[in-house]
Amino acid sequence: MAIKTPQQYIESLKDGRVVFCNGERVKDVTSHPILKICRDWMAMDYVLENDPRYRDLITEKNEEGERVSFALMPQRTREDLRRLREIVKLWARVCLGKPPGAKFVAKDGLNAVTVVSQRIDKEYGTNYAKNVEAYRKYLQKNDLSFAMGLTDVKGDRSLRPSQQKPHQDYYVRIVEERKDGIIVRGAKTHISQAPLCNELLIAPCRAMKEDDRAYALSFAVPANSKGITLISAEPEVKEPDLFDHPIAGSVFINDSTIIFEDVFVPNERIFLKGEWDFAGQVAYMFANFHRLSAETYKAMELELFTGAAALMAEYNGVEKAPHVREKLTWLVMFTEAVEIIGRSACEYCVKEPDSDLVYPNPMYANICKFYFADNWHQATKYIQDIAGGITVTCPSSKDYLNPETHALLDKYLGGKEGIPTEHRIRMAKLIRDLTSSYEDVLTIHAEGSLEAQKLSIFALADFNRYKAAAKRAARIQDGTRDKVYSELPEFPPKDL
Amino acid sequence: MAIKTPQQYIESLKDGRVVFCNGERVKDVTSHPILKICRDWMAMDYVLENDPRYRDLITEKNEEGERVSFALMPQRTREDLRRLREIVKLWARVCLGKPPGAKFVAKDGLNAVTVVSQRIDKEYGTNYAKNVEAYRKYLQKNDLSFAMGLTDVKGDRSLRPSQQKPHQDYYVRIVEERKDGIIVRGAKTHISQAPLCNELLIAPCRAMKEDDRAYALSFAVPANSKGITLISAEPEVKEPDLFDHPIAGSVFINDSTIIFEDVFVPNERIFLKGEWDFAGQVAYMFANFHRLSAETYKAMELELFTGAAALMAEYNGVEKAPHVREKLTWLVMFTEAVEIIGRSACEYCVKEPDSDLVYPNPMYANICKFYFADNWHQATKYIQDIAGGITVTCPSSKDYLNPETHALLDKYLGGKEGIPTEHRIRMAKLIRDLTSSYEDVLTIHAEGSLEAQKLSIFALADFNRYKAAAKRAARIQDGTRDKVYSELPEFPPKDL
Amino acid sequence: MAIKTPQQYIESLKDGRVVFCNGERVKDVTSHPILKICRDWMAMDYVLENDPRYRDLITEKNEEGERVSFALMPQRTREDLRRLREIVKLWARVCLGKPPGAKFVAKDGLNAVTVVSQRIDKEYGTNYAKNVEAYRKYLQKNDLSFAMGLTDVKGDRSLRPSQQKPHQDYYVRIVEERKDGIIVRGAKTHISQAPLCNELLIAPCRAMKEDDRAYALSFAVPANSKGITLISAEPEVKEPDLFDHPIAGSVFINDSTIIFEDVFVPNERIFLKGEWDFAGQVAYMFANFHRLSAETYKAMELELFTGAAALMAEYNGVEKAPHVREKLTWLVMFTEAVEIIGRSACEYCVKEPDSDLVYPNPMYANICKFYFADNWHQATKYIQDIAGGITVTCPSSKDYLNPETHALLDKYLGGKEGIPTEHRIRMAKLIRDLTSSYEDVLTIHAEGSLEAQKLSIFALADFNRYKAAAKRAARIQDGTRDKVYSELPEFPPKDL
Amino acid sequence: MAIKTPQQYIESLKDGRVVFCNGERVKDVTSHPILKICRDWMAMDYVLENDPRYRDLITEKNEEGERVSFALMPQRTREDLRRLREIVKLWARVCLGKPPGAKFVAKDGLNAVTVVSQRIDKEYGTNYAKNVEAYRKYLQKNDLSFAMGLTDVKGDRSLRPSQQKPHQDYYVRIVEERKDGIIVRGAKTHISQAPLCNELLIAPCRAMKEDDRAYALSFAVPANSKGITLISAEPEVKEPDLFDHPIAGSVFINDSTIIFEDVFVPNERIFLKGEWDFAGQVAYMFANFHRLSAETYKAMELELFTGAAALMAEYNGVEKAPHVREKLTWLVMFTEAVEIIGRSACEYCVKEPDSDLVYPNPMYANICKFYFADNWHQATKYIQDIAGGITVTCPSSKDYLNPETHALLDKYLGGKEGIPTEHRIRMAKLIRDLTSSYEDVLTIHAEGSLEAQKLSIFALADFNRYKAAAKRAARIQDGTRDKVYSELPEFPPKDL
Repeated sequence: MAIKTPQQYIESLKDGRVVFCNGERVKDVTSHPILKICRDWMAMDYVLENDPRYRDLITEKNEEGERVSFALMPQRTREDLRRLREIVKLWARVCLGKPPGAKFVAKDGLNAVTVVSQRIDKEYGTNYAKNVEAYRKYLQKNDLSFAMGLTDVKGDRSLRPSQQKPHQDYYVRIVEERKDGIIVRGAKTHISQAPLCNELLIAPCRAMKEDDRAYALSFAVPANSKGITLISAEPEVKEPDLFDHPIAGSVFINDSTIIFEDVFVPNERIFLKGEWDFAGQVAYMFANFHRLSAETYKAMELELFTGAAALMAEYNGVEKAPHVREKLTWLVMFTEAVEIIGRSACEYCVKEPDSDLVYPNPMYANICKFYFADNWHQATKYIQDIAGGITVTCPSSKDYLNPETHALLDKYLGGKEGIPTEHRIRMAKLIRDLTSSYEDVLTIHAEGSLEAQKLSIFALADFNRYKAAAKRAARIQDGTRDKVYSELPEFPPKDL
Repeated sequence: MAIKTPQQYIESLKDGRVVFCNGERVKDVTSHPILKICRDWMAMDYVLENDPRYRDLITEKNEEGERVSFALMPQRTREDLRRLREIVKLWARVCLGKPPGAKFVAKDGLNAVTVVSQRIDKEYGTNYAKNVEAYRKYLQKNDLSFAMGLTDVKGDRSLRPSQQKPHQDYYVRIVEERKDGIIVRGAKTHISQAPLCNELLIAPCRAMKEDDRAYALSFAVPANSKGITLISAEPEVKEPDLFDHPIAGSVFINDSTIIFEDVFVPNERIFLKGEWDFAGQVAYMFANFHRLSAETYKAMELELFTGAAALMAEYNGVEKAPHVREKLTWLVMFTEAVEIIGRSACEYCVKEPDSDLVYPNPMYANICKFYFADNWHQATKYIQDIAGGITVTCPSSKDYLNPETHALLDKYLGGKEGIPTEHRIRMAKLIRDLTSSYEDVLTIHAEGSLEAQKLSIFALADFNRYKAAAKRAARIQDGTRDKVYSELPEFPPKDL
Repeated sequence: MAIKTPQQYIESLKDGRVVFCNGERVKDVTSHPILKICRDWMAMDYVLENDPRYRDLITEKNEEGERVSFALMPQRTREDLRRLREIVKLWARVCLGKPPGAKFVAKDGLNAVTVVSQRIDKEYGTNYAKNVEAYRKYLQKNDLSFAMGLTDVKGDRSLRPSQQKPHQDYYVRIVEERKDGIIVRGAKTHISQAPLCNELLIAPCRAMKEDDRAYALSFAVPANSKGITLISAEPEVKEPDLFDHPIAGSVFINDSTIIFEDVFVPNERIFLKGEWDFAGQVAYMFANFHRLSAETYKAMELELFTGAAALMAEYNGVEKAPHVREKLTWLVMFTEAVEIIGRSACEYCVKEPDSDLVYPNPMYANICKFYFADNWHQATKYIQDIAGGITVTCPSSKDYLNPETHALLDKYLGGKEGIPTEHRIRMAKLIRDLTSSYEDVLTIHAEGSLEAQKLSIFALADFNRYKAAAKRAARIQDGTRDKVYSELPEFPPKDL
Repeated sequence: MAIKTPQQYIESLKDGRVVFCNGERVKDVTSHPILKICRDWMAMDYVLENDPRYRDLITEKNEEGERVSFALMPQRTREDLRRLREIVKLWARVCLGKPPGAKFVAKDGLNAVTVVSQRIDKEYGTNYAKNVEAYRKYLQKNDLSFAMGLTDVKGDRSLRPSQQKPHQDYYVRIVEERKDGIIVRGAKTHISQAPLCNELLIAPCRAMKEDDRAYALSFAVPANSKGITLISAEPEVKEPDLFDHPIAGSVFINDSTIIFEDVFVPNERIFLKGEWDFAGQVAYMFANFHRLSAETYKAMELELFTGAAALMAEYNGVEKAPHVREKLTWLVMFTEAVEIIGRSACEYCVKEPDSDLVYPNPMYANICKFYFADNWHQATKYIQDIAGGITVTCPSSKDYLNPETHALLDKYLGGKEGIPTEHRIRMAKLIRDLTSSYEDVLTIHAEGSLEAQKLSIFALADFNRYKAAAKRAARIQDGTRDKVYSELPEFPPKDL
């Protein structure tokens, strides 16, 4: 089958999984009023795969000649990355800035274990790479949605996994080894879309030491495996209303907590088991691959954001005020700079040594992430400043639609002549959604925190070149050499 | 009676007022599940008035020897302002950073019309001051809550009231003059607490020209007057839950839209009627008096905000990370600077000419407002950075309280050893509330936008003194003189 | 001859030109102690042209098969721009961040008049293009250095050229038309390197109206033409000391004021004369071409800057302090982002309609310029913070070299063990130079002010696309269509 | 005598002291062309003391009834601090933002040793307090200028004094103890005005451990003591020109390096000797007292700064451009906020326990310092943006004054009609001086670096109060109590 229809995807979720949301056990995730928002968003992955206009972009024939999701294939060239970027842009534009997560995150985890499993096999003579490859084929063949379970619940952030107290399950670990597999316990959190995915791919979120051996663990299991409890994040909305909540009513990322209470994982689904010296590499490689995502979709989200600011300025009649133009200009610059830097990360991509996989330039990708996350709150301030108090004091759309009050609100909440009042209200509601604390936190924490970017950038920096430039300028010769600066002609020139 | 009990206040609201919320006509504002949040918050004004510990601070004997709310008396000295500041601080600390609005906003409008009515009477021989004074006595005697209706719905912001299209009611105006009063039409918006107030005090929000004569209008009416419709802002929460929404579940400011459909105002409640050249003064004087409010309560809110950041750092075990300390330090500085500048505004208060009223130094108060509003989003970024993704991915408290999932969440969402998981969850929820788009917009738009502060500061600046300093340094003599700089000794000294 | 030697360049400047510097008429610009700094810097253009390692990069055969400076040839392809970028990077790296100006600025003016002259000829049947082409050949053949005289002295910035008072010469203008040419009067300012150039290329710096016809004027003249007075900027240094002033002692950009007192310009050197409607285009096209420059060299300057910060941190023994690492990380990000965005501007270059010339993407180039100029002072703060007070309190190198004090300073101004004291002092001096007010002002004003970039970015922004994204998200249909957003599938999907 | 005349002060400096500047031994510091700038600036202290208009402010009768400098008396009340603040403001306004340093810095060191010596005496039975008191009397009686030698040269900043390599003299230390005194060796750096002071007061710049005992050392010596070499910072200017360098030509702070080569200090001038556990207290107390200085004078400097920006905007004809008004507004805010916070630090001053001395509120003073230092580069950017390129491309005033070029420059460098060209040039020169790297570094490093302020603010913060506020809001009860928050009434209220 390979490419599923949206309906097939939805059917596949009726599998007895244990999901909680808002304090209640969810009987059927496909019909729950709020999880349905996530379901429909996820389904767009399948809608687009089946849309003849996008099929050639989004799907590709695999080695077996079967047409599968391109996202489930490894990226081996700059052209592959460019194509993946186009796919992510399409996903994002269709879904209001947020790519549907059926494969969006976990594909990068799959690439990460692809690279690392080969290394472990080489070092320790294990057989993980075969497992990964079989799992990839399985995903392709069944066009499965899968979530990436990376972040452990962590307990005390200043302690390593094995140092935690009062219990030792703050990071997912092996509690028992059996002949045919392992029993795992622990919890992952912030796991986007997990309740609406078929599979869960689990990997360590940090480097480990020998004591943490039991936590050096990567595997995959179906979301309905015995012992797994999925608890949804508190939803942003109580009902899927597209008027009052145009974003939150149609995109529910549903960052869940996944709890593993002694779950069995068969040997063929294990990709790392105890090789603690490789644990950090999985997290690191995941980050390398995953950097394409936010560095791509965020520019699409910002198109929407900047457009909302421009429209609200117009609807309010203030689009010519100098301070408004100044803020719109800043938003344009922000939007385009994210696009430029994110694209450059793909165009100057990096080939992972001992592997045929490529990923975005990590220096550029980290700069892109840091840049948009660091400036996001400034953008928020600007759009809120332009839009005015109406974004939070506007009555509910139910009041606007209520015949008793419709005429009054339609008359009085009007803006510039000629703009329907409804448009102004809709734009106010959109801006409230775009500037929620959810959006803030997603922007700064998803794909690694601001501090994580700083650490990466510092580690990746070519300080030797910079220092060589400064020494040459200060006329310091200390015996160090640099391939760019040491060969340059003397300046000022002698004897003219 | 003068001082009401909370119960008397609540009873007084059952008066047939026309209120809508979430698309429905509210039968009784005192028992509606969401408006009740606002009711209880407002009631704290009366709770505190009746608390023996605070009575001497909050209430005062008026000229008749009757004990009345100090907020309903005019402030005439620096000491009065300091006392008012203490009252606002108490209100704010008790109510999680937000002073209950029973008299908090409109008292400043009352002072504004007190000052301006005397001037109009002097200029035009009218009798408004008497009306204002009678109204003040009436408020005192009945300890009434009242809302300040300042901001008109405005339509196209680039046009004056009389230029609006397609209708002329974007600013509240007189549509008919009668012997005993006037008929008014139009709408005010962002009117905090209006559905839970006894009275509405209405005033123009901008300067006007002669064409706008019908819009130069200030008056007071009971909230249940015939023809008035109050429509609540869309509430932030659907139910008053103090766990998931510790702020939004206990403070609902309820910024409403008030619609006047041909409402009658008796002559004795009119404070400005057509004297268009004084319209701007009311708005300006309101701002002068009202600047004490946010410049006072915001520092209290920031205590809470900074405390939440410090606690979450501790609960997560990251309180010693250098970047966390850096951010906490910034938050402390922000908090204390707002307190310092706001307090200085009171201590260097200004006496309004031709009046015995004082208000905070307008330069300082504007700087304070701009400073905290301009830096708010930075503060938000910092607390979200410290707190982590849990602020938005945390399950609902209903899941935490659900016996089926309680033990799991209690085990896995723990942080630093010794901190109860519930505390960490509560803090995460608090931080989400503190960083909502509602808080953002309230901070930058309430008490005037960032642009309004800039205009005021520019207008109030003592450029002559600054320029004199620069000319002296540049050795420019152009005939201008300045009392500070022109008398200083020569520098460098001659003939040493 | 085509490619000159540095010696030939220097000889060519002994031509009787009228130059003033520091209050004195300069007899010979090639031997003046300060102008010599500029001379040697300019000469590097010729040194590099004659260096066999760089010849193929820097020079190219023209249509006549003569090897000429590539900078004097028009750029027609993306590859040409990439090559020009490589040349500018080389120039900049060799000369401590500042490309020598022999052709660096005016080449872009030459391209601008190339494009615009063709349009004027087409519109008015004039013959300017031929003049431009002949001038280009002349420059190539003689490998001439030339300065770009763009910015007029301007007088009152709020008035157009013809509105100025008390005189009409604030913008260069025609004061007399003769059969064989014109007489021009006025002054240009901030003209980099003019006293050390062979030729001056003059063009309008702004759009004009019909009244300004006499100011719509572009032409070229030798720098020693009768009536031209060149007055150097006050030099940053009094002597070319490479120890105390490693940058200012080896790079003197020498932004001069050029005064034209009734200078004769022959007809064949006139490129625009009175066609006021084309005046703005020359300035605009110059900017388009010239944007490659700072967008390229600034990243090279920042390499040096960031390297100096990293070295000083090391020399002071503070390279591991968290706040120092944080600041170095920011500097790395700043450096690399300027490189990324500047490079993207070349790679997404634009072909000028009705022409075969290309220039960097103007949106990207403006973003690059704004980004580095807007953040420059932050970078300055960081390096000064890391380096400490020594950058400005360090004794003169003359004290360090004075045998009476050498041993004392060598002992006491040491830093980290193993780092020679001289290196630490040299780095302190370099940082002082890098953070001078000259560098600040150059960064924000050269290649257009921050406000100019904002205007360009606003004008170039694709607001329609942004707005389409926002309308789709807010579910607003107002009849407008967008090629990206209007064709996307419906979201959320119907009927699943 | 007590109050000296300026002439007496100057005479007192002809004492054989060993001073170097610009690579040469200075024969007479009072007639050296550059040191003379410092001399005249310092002399203003005496000019003002002798000016009848200021005598009552600046001088006071001491216990002996002798009129002495108020700066040499200990401050014991809030009123004393307010008066000291007025003196500093006068000093600063007279001397273009920079108080002359005759007693400006070291007075705070004197207060520091006054406090700490009493404590050491109490702890160890020493007799330092008597020495301090005698020294204070001596300074008063002779109206001496004195410099504060605090900052050691430090070597590797990551090591303590006794850990330094390759030598042990990076911090001033005792190398020999004699019966009548001690022999000291080492060097202090960034010591403002030292070459033009009578006396040097030396104290440790950091906390120490037992190993550092030899470095725990405070004493006073005349500047001409045998073995002392004073080396001036490289001067900003080569000649005292008030046109091209209106600030640097009249204020030369002259931050010097003082080298002690085995200098004898008599017992009666020793204030700390080996009591290593008190070393940090001297530095800390100095900071406490000294915080009044920059927190006062910086607002005066900013008056001048903001005035220069406003004038240049006017002279250029851009004072009405929205972006210029925006920047001026920011500068006004910056200026006034520094004044407000600095003044509050005095008004909420702190009494040092076990002492009768007061100093500014350290939290507020640190906030003030951090605020102005952290925003300084932003201010610099704004003024440079407003002023334009002319600040650095303007010819020398010598060209302006040269009859050959005067008329040309006078004609062409004009700005707005009616403003003399000379005024515009003078303002450009002033702005260049105000934005030099010297000013930048002085602003961020004098009175402690940005990082030092952050550490202090964190240490001083009342986190308990903040946390109590947050816990109350989050409904967390963990047994902790707070005097402000724990007694507040319940909210929301029960049972209404």
